[in-house]
Amino acid sequence: MRIQPIEWRDGVVAILDQTQLPQRVVIDEYDDWRGVAEAIRVMKVRGAPAIGITAAYGLALAARAIQAETMEAFRAQFGEVCRAFAQTRPTAVNLFGAIERLQAVAARCQTPDEARARLLDEAHAIQQEDHAADHAMGQHGASLLPDNARVMTICNTGALATGGIGTALGIIRVAYQQGKLAHVYACETRPRLQGLKLTAWELLQEGIPFEVVADGAAGALMAQGKVDAVIAGADRIAANGDTANKIGTYTLAVLAHYHRAPFYIAAPVSTIDPRTPDGASIPIEYRDPAEVTHIDGLQVAPTGAPALNPAFDVTPAALIHAIITERGVFRPPYAFSEGGLAASE
Amino acid sequence: MRIQPIEWRDGVVAILDQTQLPQRVVIDEYDDWRGVAEAIRVMKVRGAPAIGITAAYGLALAARAIQAETMEAFRAQFGEVCRAFAQTRPTAVNLFGAIERLQAVAARCQTPDEARARLLDEAHAIQQEDHAADHAMGQHGASLLPDNARVMTICNTGALATGGIGTALGIIRVAYQQGKLAHVYACETRPRLQGLKLTAWELLQEGIPFEVVADGAAGALMAQGKVDAVIAGADRIAANGDTANKIGTYTLAVLAHYHRAPFYIAAPVSTIDPRTPDGASIPIEYRDPAEVTHIDGLQVAPTGAPALNPAFDVTPAALIHAIITERGVFRPPYAFSEGGLAASE
Repeated sequence: MRIQPIEWRDGVVAILDQTQLPQRVVIDEYDDWRGVAEAIRVMKVRGAPAIGITAAYGLALAARAIQAETMEAFRAQFGEVCRAFAQTRPTAVNLFGAIERLQAVAARCQTPDEARARLLDEAHAIQQEDHAADHAMGQHGASLLPDNARVMTICNTGALATGGIGTALGIIRVAYQQGKLAHVYACETRPRLQGLKLTAWELLQEGIPFEVVADGAAGALMAQGKVDAVIAGADRIAANGDTANKIGTYTLAVLAHYHRAPFYIAAPVSTIDPRTPDGASIPIEYRDPAEVTHIDGLQVAPTGAPALNPAFDVTPAALIHAIITERGVFRPPYAFSEGGLAASE
Repeated sequence: MRIQPIEWRDGVVAILDQTQLPQRVVIDEYDDWRGVAEAIRVMKVRGAPAIGITAAYGLALAARAIQAETMEAFRAQFGEVCRAFAQTRPTAVNLFGAIERLQAVAARCQTPDEARARLLDEAHAIQQEDHAADHAMGQHGASLLPDNARVMTICNTGALATGGIGTALGIIRVAYQQGKLAHVYACETRPRLQGLKLTAWELLQEGIPFEVVADGAAGALMAQGKVDAVIAGADRIAANGDTANKIGTYTLAVLAHYHRAPFYIAAPVSTIDPRTPDGASIPIEYRDPAEVTHIDGLQVAPTGAPALNPAFDVTPAALIHAIITERGVFRPPYAFSEGGLAASE
């Protein structure tokens, strides 16, 4: 079975509802862009690259529904839809990158019909580029790992999070196919448990040897010498290499630093945002405290217990040994600019 | 309401079932020592000092049921019960300390009737000593905190875990009463969520300002300068100061070290085991992987997902700024010996 979190099906957007995994495989079909935007907001689809692809298809879907005779009228309505998508999640830059790419396409079109066709083409292109990027990233990343590597990862960065085989988990897949991966430690990733639910689900399907661990166990495993490398994904990489990713990533980076284990970020270049100078400029999403106090709808905390629920944290560039992209492996000091990604490899 | 996890009630041992908290306050009464041992094993009662007190009352209960005419016969049967209690939990040294104290009492008695009475007296003494120790620890520990302290803690080290106000949480209580505590960050403490369930429950009852956070968020909070000190409890402190405590404690110690925040251990001297030379000699309990894959009996992970579930980790003495006991504050280098605790203060 090929895992595909998001698919364009002849006029509808099909989304694998990741909030139902791993107990149920439910695919929702949307013929209205508002449903697609809501699916992003409530995290039926998650993972920075997958969010970008989903937004692109959602915009293509919206374009087909826009009633407009002129491009001016079309662009006005399309701009409103773009703003609605931009408000679904604040941290992942791929969301904004996809919106901008589709807006640029719309700006070049002469007629609404041309725009409807070209916007869908662009959404397909984003998905296909992401698929190719994952494979390239997998090769680059696997080459950094030692033989019999024991790799720790966090959250879900697999096929569910991208248009292909995944970012950090894509590297793990390639390393496993190359016979150089011994074991994966999947941090369960509270509060939403994407490691326990989604990464475990993908690894089981692939037959890759792994164990889920509580997030707090990461330090003890490293102290026991059981972790050869940590690989995490990214929701946004600033120009200086500071990287926002799932809450808990920074904790792993500090632990890896202390234990002298390499800490890698794996992400497509679409996740790099040269216009964000550093980590302090990345907006961090705070989500509903109920994600901490309740698990799968079940109240676990005492009634009235307050919780703080930052969805992401920022790992400073100084703690990142390398950033693995489809265009190669970047090493510190990082200095990403819009035209200069290739030059700084 | 005074929180009391364990109480002797005229021939029965009453245990507040902490696995039911915070949703239900259920007190189980045991008139057979086997039930008391099982309550320790399944963690109806937990926390190193509370485990020691419970074992002591369980042994006192067993002593009353032993049918023996001679002390030789009594001691043989009593020894078997002691061995059963010793097998309930492997890491907390207070368990073994309580068993040894009661065995020493039994060794000195002339008749089974005398033993039955003196063993119960000894169990009461252990509980009362623990109560007094908590208050002394609270005073010593609070004196180390700055004004408006924002303190991070892990697991539950409160009244539920001890015979008094708690160890780390006892210090937090005293600091709050002294007006010098601004905020508590309670790490939720997966897998069993003692922070989310029990510490939150105690803090709510006391009106102490706090937020629960996912364990992975600890690093981000420290990076933001929001944590003035970390205080954790202990299940066993080795002669050199290496300390076993709830899984995740070592991760906090490394994070505190990296962010130059003081990391304190709070524990009664009964938790110090001079016969354990160092952390490598402390047996670490691995518990059922279902504690990771299931939450409150609900399966969260995909079926068949393997999990690794160490219940404790070891924080090396080098990362511990001070060990706060009822006899005062110990600073590194730690060198605990059976007769020399006071001398090394």
